[in-house]
Amino acid sequence: MHELRKDILLGGWIAVLADSMGPSEYPGSYAQTDETSCILCPGREDETPHEITSIKKPGSKKWWVRALPSFNPVFQVEGDLGRRGLGIYDKMNSVGANEILVESPDHSVRPEDMGLEQMIRVITLYRNRISDLEKDSRLRYILIYKNSGKEAGDTFSHPHSLLMATPVIPKLVKDELDNAKQYFAYKERCVFCDIISEELRLGERVIFESKHFAAFCPYAAQFPFECWIIPKRHSCAFQEILGEEIEDLGFIFMMILKKLRKTLDNPPFNYFIHTAPNMVPRRNHWHTLGEDFHWHIEIMPRLTRTSGFEWGSGFFILPTSPENAAKYLREVG
Amino acid sequence: MHELRKDILLGGWIAVLADSMGPSEYPGSYAQTDETSCILCPGREDETPHEITSIKKPGSKKWWVRALPSFNPVFQVEGDLGRRGLGIYDKMNSVGANEILVESPDHSVRPEDMGLEQMIRVITLYRNRISDLEKDSRLRYILIYKNSGKEAGDTFSHPHSLLMATPVIPKLVKDELDNAKQYFAYKERCVFCDIISEELRLGERVIFESKHFAAFCPYAAQFPFECWIIPKRHSCAFQEILGEEIEDLGFIFMMILKKLRKTLDNPPFNYFIHTAPNMVPRRNHWHTLGEDFHWHIEIMPRLTRTSGFEWGSGFFILPTSPENAAKYLREVG
Repeated sequence: MHELRKDILLGGWIAVLADSMGPSEYPGSYAQTDETSCILCPGREDETPHEITSIKKPGSKKWWVRALPSFNPVFQVEGDLGRRGLGIYDKMNSVGANEILVESPDHSVRPEDMGLEQMIRVITLYRNRISDLEKDSRLRYILIYKNSGKEAGDTFSHPHSLLMATPVIPKLVKDELDNAKQYFAYKERCVFCDIISEELRLGERVIFESKHFAAFCPYAAQFPFECWIIPKRHSCAFQEILGEEIEDLGFIFMMILKKLRKTLDNPPFNYFIHTAPNMVPRRNHWHTLGEDFHWHIEIMPRLTRTSGFEWGSGFFILPTSPENAAKYLREVG
Repeated sequence: MHELRKDILLGGWIAVLADSMGPSEYPGSYAQTDETSCILCPGREDETPHEITSIKKPGSKKWWVRALPSFNPVFQVEGDLGRRGLGIYDKMNSVGANEILVESPDHSVRPEDMGLEQMIRVITLYRNRISDLEKDSRLRYILIYKNSGKEAGDTFSHPHSLLMATPVIPKLVKDELDNAKQYFAYKERCVFCDIISEELRLGERVIFESKHFAAFCPYAAQFPFECWIIPKRHSCAFQEILGEEIEDLGFIFMMILKKLRKTLDNPPFNYFIHTAPNMVPRRNHWHTLGEDFHWHIEIMPRLTRTSGFEWGSGFFILPTSPENAAKYLREVG
């Protein structure tokens, strides 16, 4: 069984896979699947692990979007957490979930071209999977993310997102939460609400504003052309998104992805949803860690290589300013 | 002038370059230099920025190792910090230093093959540069690091390391410092000293132990085959290394790099030195933030690609356990 280990120095966690790879097996691990025989395409449902859920055409067996367990899960659904010490270190069982969220039956469609109806289904699938998994009291966090392009860690060419549910709050999310909490304690305002209001007031980093969302390049982005999409209504949990907001999000999300593709000539990219951690049962009440959090989507084109400087410092260098990036993205047709 | 911006959410800093790159200029930024006309080779000293320092063959003009200002500096030596607010955000001038530390006159030698005498000169150059720059009270941190191989962000094929001196303590270093301080407050022991003693007691992750140093694969490594080299004597600052320790470090450093090359078939890698921040003048005494810190070198082979999971969570997946990695590295000749 895989195990989770705590970094005694930085406080984060890592997963150590049980079947250790030998040195000669690198870098074979991220070979992309063969285009001519895609296991995620319709017609091969019998060969995949048992489907978790799907959204189907009414009265038909044809699925529009579906969630499958991962073929090589890092986290496993069964078992208890088994938190324990080992000398000075801490470890626990790798309990959680890994899912593949298939975004379309069409192998070669891009998310930004799939049409609003289909994008709404994708976002609805995201919401449903989080709503379902947050009921499992062993799980602390559910991260939905996408790898698009080999350089961004993509392994299937079929359009899909990924889901990882972990029994610990990931370090980066915890850092965001802790800092948002500290800001709230000092100002009695949500830091994300302040960011939205500042960005909309200035306008220079805004790409697009819709009824419910704002899309902008953040002031201190880690990557050039990084974009955030954030709801204007204060809401800590993505799964509490309303029907009208889903439609609006689908529209702005597709627009930003299209603008990135046009501006950067089809770049590899990652995106992920940062939402509040799951509520934790504490005796006879429910406690949420995310009251002062505000969910958002971060989209990161992978244009630059990280070097020893970034890995050794956590300091990032932006060759294009967020103001210029936003200008390019605003202007592209 | 380039500027530094503070991430209001995570607390880290980023540098925004003044001459913003357009979208079509990516990914040209990391083209390697032409092998046939290397500007770092002997004979072209007139074409490089003015040398900062060098170690020369006694009675000769021939240099063994030398430090040059970076050709495209992100940080500039002149000027004041200009700390200021801008709406809700913080920024400052990009004051600091970027240097290229040329490790050998020989264009094609690898660090691990350059011989102990030369490796001692490289380590001595590292020490001298930190000792010199720490006197500048505007600077808070000096990071020495190496990018080896294009995938690791290397831009010159001539053997060299890099130095970045920053007017802020980089986030990753600050996280290590804060956690080490918290551990010390709780246990009244250095967390690094505890790690060394635990690793040497268990032995399963140890690659080699010399008189003054231990090399091991850390319990919760972020990257497969990640190695640490750490002095057994408690010392927060790399620049306080003693002559006898330099020789020992040169020996163990070359050995670990050789073992990584053999085991992983010449992998791209980064390494960096984590040492205590510079001392900060506080009225009429000097205050160091690093009394409970312990300097060390982290070496990271770049075998895996980071995906949206790592960038969205700070959670890492190790396909090879540190115990197995150490076993391979111990056994390779």
